[in-house]
Amino acid sequence: MKYAGFSRRALIGGAGAGLAAGAAAGAFGRAVAVPAQPHPVRLGAARVEFHGPHQAGILQPQQARVELAALDLAPGATRQSVQQLFRRWTATAGSLALGEPAGPDENQVALDAGPSSLTVTLGLGAAFFDRLGLTARRPPQLAALPDFPQDAIDRARSDGDLFLQVGADDALVAFHALRVLQQQAAGTATVRWQMSGFSRSPGATAQPRTGRNLMGQVDGTNNPKPTDPDFAAKVFATGPDWLAGGSYLVFRRIRMLLDNWEKLSTDRQERIVGRRKSDGAPLSGGTETTPVDLAKQGPDGGPAVPPDAHVRLAAPASNGGAAMLRRGFSYADGVRADGAPDAGLLFLAFQADPAHGFVPVQRSLSRGDVLTTFLRHEASGLYAVLPGVPDGGYLGQALLES
Amino acid sequence: MKYAGFSRRALIGGAGAGLAAGAAAGAFGRAVAVPAQPHPVRLGAARVEFHGPHQAGILQPQQARVELAALDLAPGATRQSVQQLFRRWTATAGSLALGEPAGPDENQVALDAGPSSLTVTLGLGAAFFDRLGLTARRPPQLAALPDFPQDAIDRARSDGDLFLQVGADDALVAFHALRVLQQQAAGTATVRWQMSGFSRSPGATAQPRTGRNLMGQVDGTNNPKPTDPDFAAKVFATGPDWLAGGSYLVFRRIRMLLDNWEKLSTDRQERIVGRRKSDGAPLSGGTETTPVDLAKQGPDGGPAVPPDAHVRLAAPASNGGAAMLRRGFSYADGVRADGAPDAGLLFLAFQADPAHGFVPVQRSLSRGDVLTTFLRHEASGLYAVLPGVPDGGYLGQALLES
Repeated sequence: MKYAGFSRRALIGGAGAGLAAGAAAGAFGRAVAVPAQPHPVRLGAARVEFHGPHQAGILQPQQARVELAALDLAPGATRQSVQQLFRRWTATAGSLALGEPAGPDENQVALDAGPSSLTVTLGLGAAFFDRLGLTARRPPQLAALPDFPQDAIDRARSDGDLFLQVGADDALVAFHALRVLQQQAAGTATVRWQMSGFSRSPGATAQPRTGRNLMGQVDGTNNPKPTDPDFAAKVFATGPDWLAGGSYLVFRRIRMLLDNWEKLSTDRQERIVGRRKSDGAPLSGGTETTPVDLAKQGPDGGPAVPPDAHVRLAAPASNGGAAMLRRGFSYADGVRADGAPDAGLLFLAFQADPAHGFVPVQRSLSRGDVLTTFLRHEASGLYAVLPGVPDGGYLGQALLES
Repeated sequence: MKYAGFSRRALIGGAGAGLAAGAAAGAFGRAVAVPAQPHPVRLGAARVEFHGPHQAGILQPQQARVELAALDLAPGATRQSVQQLFRRWTATAGSLALGEPAGPDENQVALDAGPSSLTVTLGLGAAFFDRLGLTARRPPQLAALPDFPQDAIDRARSDGDLFLQVGADDALVAFHALRVLQQQAAGTATVRWQMSGFSRSPGATAQPRTGRNLMGQVDGTNNPKPTDPDFAAKVFATGPDWLAGGSYLVFRRIRMLLDNWEKLSTDRQERIVGRRKSDGAPLSGGTETTPVDLAKQGPDGGPAVPPDAHVRLAAPASNGGAAMLRRGFSYADGVRADGAPDAGLLFLAFQADPAHGFVPVQRSLSRGDVLTTFLRHEASGLYAVLPGVPDGGYLGQALLES
């Protein structure tokens, strides 16, 4: 592996900033110092280490652009052909993360733009196990998500045997990486659906800060922090053995009824969410990072955070401690036939077990959340995100070679 | 107007780099020095001046993200209501370009990310004039584009009375700006279609350079340069009076048949385009910026640039000097029902007269261009891009007040 003048440490610090470094310290007890950065790494040159205990694309801050794709195995796919594909994808993801071409035939779309913090993250859907005669090894956590009352799920844009999250700070780099991975799958798997999303561009805000969704709300403040003592227990799977260090990813395409939402006053929007729009501070007071005080009284004697506010219903305290690491991207796909914007959130949440993460939270939200009436869940997926790959290994090795 | 510590000059240099400054010098004989930039402007803080002889969004380099939208006038729209709308849009585009909110009610989606080089560019379709009883003033240059042999145009995603190009280096900033403009149009115009595109992220390449399209080719090298003596004559309209300093914009949504294209060898791709894939240098030799030598012989005695190469057929020398300022963005909208990528180029080209720009070039391409067999033109538009706005004026004033 070539680092072209970047030390491994500078590489982590440059690409993932404090989060990646802090995560390694918090989750694995390895102290990884965040180095001083006298010369900030140029956007295109920033690299995220591919190898490690977890796949890249979980602990890193969202990149400016994401391509999501689900693939279905071809009828003739076998354990051997999938093994070969995962070996190839591992090599390719590793090369592209270094800004190197995937192979001699690979075209040069992104060659002049470096990796731009490229990450490739692979997950397996429930049907993957059935198709390859591995049903007995399918984790019970991959059981289908329950239907929620307001769901309007399009199955053609949901599920899939394989799931790829390809993020980069340059859109062409992400697109190109997904094209290469897709071509390598020819004969073994074909794309079932694909979606593009975006997050803040690096440098857009004066300081790195929590992003905003298309409703204009600061979104993601209450995410578990890698420095939390129970961070790994919330986010990473401990078993089955082949999944240890992996995670479960819940994907939802959530359209926002922006025409309705934007008609509300800021005050009303803030009471629905439970946070101030300007800076994300909870209505119970303080700044964005002040913990929400659900018991706090407002000036009128009622709760400062309304009983049906989103932050109350979604809070771990309201859901038996349920938590997940959200890493969603906005999407904007033009207008629908009815004239409404086809825009919203590509919700992505990593968790140790959906039964103690997404499922109880979404059940709670679907019962009383006013925000839910401004949202439509239109696609859904649940995937076992494979553990990271040590040098010399490949994605899914422990599952496929056992 | 507040500049919050930015001088007007630094502002132009910071946002538009050499192109904007050079353009002003070339087209208007005003020497605008490009200032030294000891502290490069942060992406979010970079501003593009809204006021000037031309609208912003023509001479500036492509931003990382674009939202394109066409709107149709509501049945009850009048010259007065449109005047009111254009006044409002002018004020809003000016405020947002400075990173200021559009008004007290405006939500704060992008407030923490600055303008991120936001530009808003307004054009008028042919039907605009008929709807407002201005048919007599409709320029002949807005006559419908001819049908070209390989066209597969979806009219529902084409044309439109009004056209907005909203570019920014942060996707949320661009999306939010378009939402605000769209809301302000309520009652007067509704969105007919909307598309999102992307270009390189600032900092992705080590030096600013010509972008690549999704086929992997360097695209845009042969654009007219603001320093060319005839730049203004190629790009800006000289009449009718109300359009002087404006331009004509041809929009085409061009899907790329990437599955077919990517099966070709790099050598074959290069002969179809006429340029090297690695660096964009013409096959007649030199570097990217070396003029294409159409007469040059190759080692086999045949033309170095093949007779049916794209650069030959599109060259001004092959089309009576026809030229246009291309400013296209890539798009990637997932996969189609047939499994092919719904991805390609949102072609945008500014020109003084389509009859001496897009039309002859596209006619030439549609006759013999091999590249054309890998492309599908699926949407189309032609718009009169209004001149820029002086301080105190508003978009379209000369047309609507006469």
